Amino acid sequence: MKNFKILHKDGKARVGELITPHGIIETPNFNPVGTQAAVKALSPKDLKEIGVQIVLANTYHLMLRPGADLIEKFGGLHKFMGWDKPIMTDSGGFQVFSLGIALEHGSSKVVGKGDSEPRPRLNKITEDGVTFQSHLDGSRYILTPEKSIRIQAQLGADLIVAFDDHESSKHTHDEMLKSIELTKRWGLRSLKAHKTNQLMYGVVHGGTHKDLRVRSAKFTDKNFEAIAIGGIYGDRQKLCEIIDWVVPQVSEEKPRHLLGIGEVEDLFNGIERGIDLFDCVAPTRRARNGSLYVYPDRILNLRQSRFTADKKPIDPQCSCYTCANFSRAYLRHLFFAGEILYHQLATYHNIHFMTNLVKDIREAIKEDRFNKLRGT
Amino acid sequence: MKNFKILHKDGKARVGELITPHGIIETPNFNPVGTQAAVKALSPKDLKEIGVQIVLANTYHLMLRPGADLIEKFGGLHKFMGWDKPIMTDSGGFQVFSLGIALEHGSSKVVGKGDSEPRPRLNKITEDGVTFQSHLDGSRYILTPEKSIRIQAQLGADLIVAFDDHESSKHTHDEMLKSIELTKRWGLRSLKAHKTNQLMYGVVHGGTHKDLRVRSAKFTDKNFEAIAIGGIYGDRQKLCEIIDWVVPQVSEEKPRHLLGIGEVEDLFNGIERGIDLFDCVAPTRRARNGSLYVYPDRILNLRQSRFTADKKPIDPQCSCYTCANFSRAYLRHLFFAGEILYHQLATYHNIHFMTNLVKDIREAIKEDRFNKLRGT
Repeated sequence: MKNFKILHKDGKARVGELITPHGIIETPNFNPVGTQAAVKALSPKDLKEIGVQIVLANTYHLMLRPGADLIEKFGGLHKFMGWDKPIMTDSGGFQVFSLGIALEHGSSKVVGKGDSEPRPRLNKITEDGVTFQSHLDGSRYILTPEKSIRIQAQLGADLIVAFDDHESSKHTHDEMLKSIELTKRWGLRSLKAHKTNQLMYGVVHGGTHKDLRVRSAKFTDKNFEAIAIGGIYGDRQKLCEIIDWVVPQVSEEKPRHLLGIGEVEDLFNGIERGIDLFDCVAPTRRARNGSLYVYPDRILNLRQSRFTADKKPIDPQCSCYTCANFSRAYLRHLFFAGEILYHQLATYHNIHFMTNLVKDIREAIKEDRFNKLRGT
Repeated sequence: MKNFKILHKDGKARVGELITPHGIIETPNFNPVGTQAAVKALSPKDLKEIGVQIVLANTYHLMLRPGADLIEKFGGLHKFMGWDKPIMTDSGGFQVFSLGIALEHGSSKVVGKGDSEPRPRLNKITEDGVTFQSHLDGSRYILTPEKSIRIQAQLGADLIVAFDDHESSKHTHDEMLKSIELTKRWGLRSLKAHKTNQLMYGVVHGGTHKDLRVRSAKFTDKNFEAIAIGGIYGDRQKLCEIIDWVVPQVSEEKPRHLLGIGEVEDLFNGIERGIDLFDCVAPTRRARNGSLYVYPDRILNLRQSRFTADKKPIDPQCSCYTCANFSRAYLRHLFFAGEILYHQLATYHNIHFMTNLVKDIREAIKEDRFNKLRGT
């Protein structure tokens, strides 16, 4: 892949550069999620100050509100949201999955919070694509491979994703097989519909079945310039296994993105196994819930009363604006007082933490001390 | 007043400097309100970038949460909230009034939103002070002149306010008279309790009765180094009359603060009549509701559908971060999508607007063209 260069390897962990029309993404890297064309509680100025190199926005949410036509009229997402660095959009497949079998199986993340009561599905999957009802107002939409790629062209992100079917973690092997075959056919239609210079990821599925993951990985590698791994909902151990099945099947020189994964330990596990890119709502969502990252892999929960009069910053070793200026006690006060400023300061810290974590990891790989960094 | 210098006058409008331990406040000026030790949706960095010179925090809210003892342990409000420029605290009188007669009269601003159904009062006023129940959890507190001044000393603001009784706009002349007499006695007790170098305002009350306003103004001028005017809930015309009654009764060389007032037209009306300082939640609250200021005195309501695809910034003449980078359409999208970033960007603009308005007014007064500026 001519726009992706691997600069150094330390075991399977690798440091590289992904070149996009809006600048270089140093890998390994982490994409903060800006679901609705905004990273929650952070301005583009904040993101730049922190050193964020790429954000991910959600095709499903943006097609519903404000609509892809509007964003296209503004010259695309970059101009609409005032962010001139790289952007990735997803295919919408995960969200429409969340409106379907995930509802029936009580594990939707768009409606409800996952692990909820089974509910009737809001989507219908055919060979053509997915018909669904908006979670906002119940209006009907259809998403097909052609439509997903067209919308992603309108949004104008640097990196896009082929439209994929999502199997449920409760599916049988036979159901999974049908699902990855559908994802293959949709992938080929996505490629055919692809008319821009956006870099398109194909998505490897197959649940927790080795044979299906291998099969899907081979197909994806054969047809796509960039490899995404989707449909991982299992435990941490399973995640490692899946990556270990997939990575040997795909070309060394293609970027590899683990979709929707981004806890600290997952990053280390993924990078150790050759993953280059991650996106996840965890750091922004955790911040809003009072959970703040402290190096190397500890969560500080501001709800705990022991922080009531604590004069220390969130992380005494952190150099971010929040840690340089505010105490745990003040942040805890803002949290319980329901102040918007809490969300800004907490999110700033958590995204700063993730951004610096991947930066530290890149440095460590360059100096062949990834395992040493991990051990600290 | 040795810490207040009048530099120039244009009619009754005046430009001056109020010197505090945390820096100079150029007057006329506007205090954004940071009720709970935070200006809603703005960090101290944002406030400095905008050019804000002073913020006001509420004694009532802070004594309940996180408590004055905690803030004192942190070295006062400045250190607690990370703001090293001037701060003013109010006496708490207005908020405990809102828990009492204002509830009976259906005009509380702490409980409910004003203009509500009459409800039983949550406070009891005696000669000693006010016993009240917290609006947060119903627990009982007492606020006396001595306690208000002690708490304000613990908070450590540069400017503080003597404890005052608040008359209701539905009170009779006799009831008002009793109220201002109580405010006088509480004012004298506040002076006696005052042991710091904080500049203390006395508060002029008297509702819409000229004789009572004059009487209260004379007493305040005789006993205090700084003059606040409180208890103004009437219409715009009434506000002008009240200022015109009070200003001739107070010394030229003392700063004059109009408490809780701060719509654009009120600022012009007040400054024209010799007022130096204002505080109000209007710009921050309006921002959160989708109301944005456009020069000179127009409100743009983002809820209107005509802004759906509007590429212009809020105010094409504005130089703030929000106007330099984002369209009305994007802000409207963020507003309806419930994004926290909306609050940050909208509040930034409104506070920038007010800060620049008073700056423009200061320049105009210096150049004897206040009326001309007002006419534009």
